Parts: sequence; C-alpha cells; structure tokens
Amino acid sequence: MATKQAGLGIRRRSQCPVSCTLDVLGDKWSLLVVRDLLRGKKRYAEFLDSSEGIPTNILAERLKRLVARGVIRSHRYSQHPPRVEYELTAKGEDLRPIVRAMVDWGVRHEGGRVPPPLPATGR
Amino acid sequence: MATKQAGLGIRRRSQCPVSCTLDVLGDKWSLLVVRDLLRGKKRYAEFLDSSEGIPTNILAERLKRLVARGVIRSHRYSQHPPRVEYELTAKGEDLRPIVRAMVDWGVRHEGGRVPPPLPATGR
Repeated sequence: MATKQAGLGIRRRSQCPVSCTLDVLGDKWSLLVVRDLLRGKKRYAEFLDSSEGIPTNILAERLKRLVARGVIRSHRYSQHPPRVEYELTAKGEDLRPIVRAMVDWGVRHEGGRVPPPLPATGR
Repeated sequence: MATKQAGLGIRRRSQCPVSCTLDVLGDKWSLLVVRDLLRGKKRYAEFLDSSEGIPTNILAERLKRLVARGVIRSHRYSQHPPRVEYELTAKGEDLRPIVRAMVDWGVRHEGGRVPPPLPATGR
C-alpha cells in the first residue's frame, strides 16, 4: 500500500494518475466549485448561492485546499473590509475536460439538465 | 437548496449534471474501482489488490452502491462456494471519458505515471 507523502500534506495513495487526481478532487464538492469558477463565479457568496447548498464550513475548507493544491488562486478586491475573489489557475483551467465529461455523463445517465455552453477559455 | 430524492436512495442536490455525476461518483474510491474494471479486473480480491489499498468495508460498500446505481453488474462464476464477478454496464463503460480526462490531468499536474493504454472497448 502506498503511503508516500506528496507535497502540501496530501497523502498520495499510488502513482496512478486517476488516483492522484482523486487525491485532490475526489469528493462531492470540489468540482462544483471548479464548475462555478468555469461559469464565471468568483466570490464566496456566489459559491454559497449555488443550488446544491454547500455548507459554509465545507466551502471554506475546499477553497483553502484548492488554493493549497494550486487549482485556484485568490486575490483581494477590497482592502476595507478585506475581501477576496477566486480564479482558476492554468492547472484549474485544465480541469475543463473532466467537468465536460461529467456534464455529458450526468445528462446521459443521471437525468441532469443540459447546461448552456461553458464560456470559452481565454487560454 | 435542492432536496429532491432521486431513485435508489441517493439524494440529488440539483439538476446540474456535474452535481448528478458527483452524487454517484464523488468520492476517492468509486472511480478507482471503475478504472480497475476498465483495465480488466473483475473480482473482489483483484480490487483489493490494487496499489491504493482500498479498505475491505469501503470496497464492499462501493460495489454495492455501483450495482445499485447501474454502473456495474455482478454475476456468479461459482456456485460452491458462491462467488461473483463484476463488470461494467453500458452506463459504466460510458465513464471512460471521465477516467481518461483524469489520467491526463493527473499526469500533467500531479506527477502521475503515464499508464499503458486502456484496453479498447467492445462497444
């Protein structure tokens, strides 16, 4: 059993890239935050507002982890009071094919509603 | 907040297909079992043997859920003693693009090892 430590405190279970991806994103919420960012949301209150109703403590923890893993970054848009916005890094933008494949599968097999097209990437 | 019940006892958080997909597969283990099946594994002991070291109780629960969700099916290959093998349904085979996208991302961004090509699908 692999117990090697990867960077940033996440335990890496194996060298399999599917496993490595799930070490970072294998939960019910992280990819919903990524989806929201791909669709133009940037702020904590906007993520909270999504229809899945993410609990505040989970949202705060996921944002912190996604920043630590280099998937998103934050920047301040107000000093008084201090407020941050989030955006996808290049690594986070590269999650687009995974999200797109989940859209396809969810529509075909789980009765998900066909969404409007994702905004085009600037990259 | 969506609290609608989907079939088979899984709570559906919204109609977003990404969310619907994660309702079924949003954890660290389910897609590793799917990966194993895509790579030709069929039996409980083979899944247990994978390098991530899935705990037996989690494996048993995930197999049950994946059967309940129509992603895999089981069939007996021995009556005495009773033993089953698992295989992907068409719905499960359709997870291939998600797994493939995770391979790509894990190799590019998380230091995952490039795997041998997946066996071709018979479909």
